[in-house]
Amino acid sequence: MTELISVAQAESLIAEHMPSFGSERVPLHQAAGRILRQPVYAEHDHPPFDRVMMDGIAIHWHENLPRAFTLTGVQLAGMAMQALVATDTCIEVTTGAMLPAGCDCVIPVEQAQRDGDSYRLVDGYQPARGQFIHSRGSDCVVGEQLLDVGTRIGAPEMALLAANGFAQIEVAAMPSIAIVSTGDELVDVGAPLGEGQIRRSNDIAVATALRLHGFERIAIEHVIDDEQATRHTLARLLATHDVLILSGGVSMGQRDYVPSALQALDVRRVFHRIAQKPGKPMWFGIGPQQQCVFALPGNPVSALVCAVRYVRPALLAAMGTTATSVETVCLDASMDTHAMLTSFVPAHVHTDALGLTMAHPVPSRTSGDFSSLPRTHGVLQLAPGLGPLPAGAVAAFYRW
Amino acid sequence: MTELISVAQAESLIAEHMPSFGSERVPLHQAAGRILRQPVYAEHDHPPFDRVMMDGIAIHWHENLPRAFTLTGVQLAGMAMQALVATDTCIEVTTGAMLPAGCDCVIPVEQAQRDGDSYRLVDGYQPARGQFIHSRGSDCVVGEQLLDVGTRIGAPEMALLAANGFAQIEVAAMPSIAIVSTGDELVDVGAPLGEGQIRRSNDIAVATALRLHGFERIAIEHVIDDEQATRHTLARLLATHDVLILSGGVSMGQRDYVPSALQALDVRRVFHRIAQKPGKPMWFGIGPQQQCVFALPGNPVSALVCAVRYVRPALLAAMGTTATSVETVCLDASMDTHAMLTSFVPAHVHTDALGLTMAHPVPSRTSGDFSSLPRTHGVLQLAPGLGPLPAGAVAAFYRW
Repeated sequence: MTELISVAQAESLIAEHMPSFGSERVPLHQAAGRILRQPVYAEHDHPPFDRVMMDGIAIHWHENLPRAFTLTGVQLAGMAMQALVATDTCIEVTTGAMLPAGCDCVIPVEQAQRDGDSYRLVDGYQPARGQFIHSRGSDCVVGEQLLDVGTRIGAPEMALLAANGFAQIEVAAMPSIAIVSTGDELVDVGAPLGEGQIRRSNDIAVATALRLHGFERIAIEHVIDDEQATRHTLARLLATHDVLILSGGVSMGQRDYVPSALQALDVRRVFHRIAQKPGKPMWFGIGPQQQCVFALPGNPVSALVCAVRYVRPALLAAMGTTATSVETVCLDASMDTHAMLTSFVPAHVHTDALGLTMAHPVPSRTSGDFSSLPRTHGVLQLAPGLGPLPAGAVAAFYRW
Repeated sequence: MTELISVAQAESLIAEHMPSFGSERVPLHQAAGRILRQPVYAEHDHPPFDRVMMDGIAIHWHENLPRAFTLTGVQLAGMAMQALVATDTCIEVTTGAMLPAGCDCVIPVEQAQRDGDSYRLVDGYQPARGQFIHSRGSDCVVGEQLLDVGTRIGAPEMALLAANGFAQIEVAAMPSIAIVSTGDELVDVGAPLGEGQIRRSNDIAVATALRLHGFERIAIEHVIDDEQATRHTLARLLATHDVLILSGGVSMGQRDYVPSALQALDVRRVFHRIAQKPGKPMWFGIGPQQQCVFALPGNPVSALVCAVRYVRPALLAAMGTTATSVETVCLDASMDTHAMLTSFVPAHVHTDALGLTMAHPVPSRTSGDFSSLPRTHGVLQLAPGLGPLPAGAVAAFYRW
């Protein structure tokens, strides 16, 4: 039996051994949710010209401004730059247009009335020099760094990439992932359920925990409890995938063929068994071509806890994400801790009227009891040996 | 000019007018992230049989238990039920197997040594009746409700659906959405940038804000500032989509053709202009076939704020989601509020060591300044007329 390692040791051993999955260039419309692998600089000043902010007229401001201006032209959004011909004239402008040459003041349409071929200011209205002009480069200047490597591309990042002409963009490549369940008792969701059988559910749950965080290249397989079949399937999947996630077959039983099959395939064991509950039997290793192999316990709660606590964060970190801070929450009830093992406890969370994120623990009775998980949002991590934690104590929280 | 309505009025007017988008049956592997539209009941007891929790031997417990048991059979996971033949015999069992008939105690492999055709208990080991048995129905019983209508299908829900044989599942149909930008000054991300032009970015930003929350049926279009073209394009899109999201063309200018085009197409205006900053010109209406039309301002920050504050929550609510509570955060700096208008202020958030979600406001200088948005996670909503809010005040927060 191998020695138990701590949660922190497991985390750092995984981080030490994870390979990079490289990067790839994708069309911008496929970049939503991806992790940026190039810095992004401003293509031009923003705005790229002195930009009119209101529909109205543009004039040249000076002391003793006349009350009426002869209309000499129009400057619509998207038009090349017009020019003012004299200080008592004006040019009609629309929001988003270039400020015409010679102008330094925009008067909104509500404050100037059209009168034949001229505009007259509303009585008492006093415009100010520079008003309603969004000056060239006032948001940012050409060459300024806008986005860092490692940023996840959400809506604001997408806006900046589009605005700066990035029709293609370098993002972290997605690892190709195979999720493999083991166990003769497991049947497919669509098959009739025979005596002694249960349906496969860990594979699709782990796949969902990854898919909803942007992972797309996921295959699902099942192997029966047979030494040859296990080794054969794992060999094929190691040859074709960057990441293997196994569920089941890693306990101490004589029919737990996964560790020996992995060893025979030259997958080097980095660790086996973590001082935690649930999820103690977790196994992690690295294949001869740097494939990462996460072998999770077969119990549904254990498998899902290990997937969101170890597998998903490790994959995102290996892809270079810089958003890795751990969420903290406040317990709304006292909780016992285990003397020797880190506890992972499913919990429901909500933010209260004070802006505090409160966590209500919903312990599962066994590591096989996943029927209460849908009322929870994720899992609390409670360090061992702290005795009973009072309500109000703060804990790390990992979302499903 | 129409009267300004409040943020709360806008929200409830939208909710009042949103249609349902119906539901559809999808294969389970396509259900990740979707909203459940049927209740889900347990297909069978969980576990469906008395389930062995350890690899080892199963026996019949009684007072004066012998120290050795003759091995008479094996019960592997997935096998039909075996039976104990006598009280001084045992059956080898594996984790996940049915408990053999006549047994009520599982002894782990570490506590029993194989000795010829029998197993001998380790010296001093005293098993207890019922140990290491996960009893039939102890997690839940057949017919028990496991998931409610309106639940978003994440990893735990997917596990339960698979475990209960839902190869297909009824989920909220996805509305088909067209996002339309307007403005002659806007060019495509891949096109050269001429004088007076900027690149389209609102459409892809709004699309991203929806895509990353599971919306897939999104088309993007652009119309030039022309009354006929605007009306023609909107007519076509209204005939083919459930939801239109327009950006630009809703201000007060003579070339803002959107409101008049919508009117001509019998899209009934529900409101135009909200007492908020940014995003005041927002327009909302309902088409003759119950199409929802959200016309957002053209400025990038305004458009994105309106998309995450109104459009996305309204679509999710119309699809029947029950997860609608608003996140609250705590300001880490004092903030001025506007006398008359609700303020939306971009902010960076993090949870601190106490479990408090702290928000650091990052105001944009103009509603066109989106270069600072990538350092933020969403937008604070600050009610009008509160004077200066102190650091520590709590505000609603909407994520990008």
